Amino acid sequence: MQRYKAAVAYDGSGFSGYQIQPRGRTVQGEIEQVLQKLHKGEVIGVTASGRTDSGVHARGQVIHFDSPLQLSGDQWIKALNSLLPDDISFLRVEAAESDFHARFDATKKKYKYFLYGGLVRDPFKRHFAAHVRGAFDVKVMREAAEHLTGTHDFTSFCSAKTETDNRVRTLFELDIQDHGGELELTFIGDGFLYNMVRIIVGTLLDAGSGKLKISDIPGILAAKDRTMAGKTAPAEGLYLWEVYYE
Amino acid sequence: MQRYKAAVAYDGSGFSGYQIQPRGRTVQGEIEQVLQKLHKGEVIGVTASGRTDSGVHARGQVIHFDSPLQLSGDQWIKALNSLLPDDISFLRVEAAESDFHARFDATKKKYKYFLYGGLVRDPFKRHFAAHVRGAFDVKVMREAAEHLTGTHDFTSFCSAKTETDNRVRTLFELDIQDHGGELELTFIGDGFLYNMVRIIVGTLLDAGSGKLKISDIPGILAAKDRTMAGKTAPAEGLYLWEVYYE
Repeated sequence: MQRYKAAVAYDGSGFSGYQIQPRGRTVQGEIEQVLQKLHKGEVIGVTASGRTDSGVHARGQVIHFDSPLQLSGDQWIKALNSLLPDDISFLRVEAAESDFHARFDATKKKYKYFLYGGLVRDPFKRHFAAHVRGAFDVKVMREAAEHLTGTHDFTSFCSAKTETDNRVRTLFELDIQDHGGELELTFIGDGFLYNMVRIIVGTLLDAGSGKLKISDIPGILAAKDRTMAGKTAPAEGLYLWEVYYE
Repeated sequence: MQRYKAAVAYDGSGFSGYQIQPRGRTVQGEIEQVLQKLHKGEVIGVTASGRTDSGVHARGQVIHFDSPLQLSGDQWIKALNSLLPDDISFLRVEAAESDFHARFDATKKKYKYFLYGGLVRDPFKRHFAAHVRGAFDVKVMREAAEHLTGTHDFTSFCSAKTETDNRVRTLFELDIQDHGGELELTFIGDGFLYNMVRIIVGTLLDAGSGKLKISDIPGILAAKDRTMAGKTAPAEGLYLWEVYYE
């Protein structure tokens, strides 16, 4: 058996999330079904760096799987992509050490969030960026973001349904680029809690629209209370962009 | 009654084309249905600069319609876009002269066509750009394009189903930009025949891949025979970008 490490992109808009489940179309389900075809009916399980929710995209989700087949990266890509539906695509496949683990070995992750303002919604972005109706001040959002980088207990910034007890995470970078009214927010951290990026985006928008003061942010962090932070921003703006390994 | 001129964007991937028809979802059908709602059941017909085929997009389709309502541009945009499905969006609405005609008054049109190469197809582009598997030489495509600009009988470059007798058109510009392997082709002309942009793209790809010599192009034009030109490139790469008026 050979362990393989692969990077996968998917448009999340047609999926009930990454993780396989009894009902609904999932990314994992589609990939495992194709791997099974390529292995004459043998079930090949895949393990990802983490789940993504319904409607959330990936530009560089990383998975691993074991296979008796000895194929090159390009051979895997051709075989898998020709059988997969066109909203999932393998970008890279490479042989890995037998103990490589897509989830446990990940040291950092990069997410991006895209949003745009203005009166007119863009039909080409409806699945790919969030449309914000009100005005927002990017400079204020950047100042608010500075309070969130570093190591914090992010309990206020994760779903109340989060099962992890340790909610301390380090956000190395939270950068906001303004491309003529479309914002590109980049998050790099050692780990992200459930809905953490989307709740941070919702809170930054509250700051940017004046609903919240920048000086409120430290208190929200200290409160460790989800109800203190902003709304969860919509799924369609969120992309798992890259997963880092040693 | 006031005549209005409007610019409309739509993602064509969910439509059986622009023009209303007995079966299938159409852009015109959706717009007229919403206008009827805004006019308490009264039927308001819309006239476009021209049709677009199934799967073809618009960034700036222009239409006109008559209405007894006196609304500002922003009021129309808010009223229409809040009722329209999210794959159609009104960008601009303005009062026009009572004899303005979206089709007959159009003097030029701009189309764009997006395509990309490489082994890996991009799931985010599956409805928005054509994926070309083989290699193509952009420099050769640009040289081939030079033979097509100017005034020509484009019979070889339109569908055999074209009903128009006069197939002489002027292509003012055919520009090809290479954004790191993704090509953006821009066409500006005084009018375009049925499938003309897509057949030109297919022919340029034949030149770029060596299937056709650049010096063959004048002969293909002279033959006035559709079977001499390349294949019709896929709909998903094509956008009606702008319609020009005096």
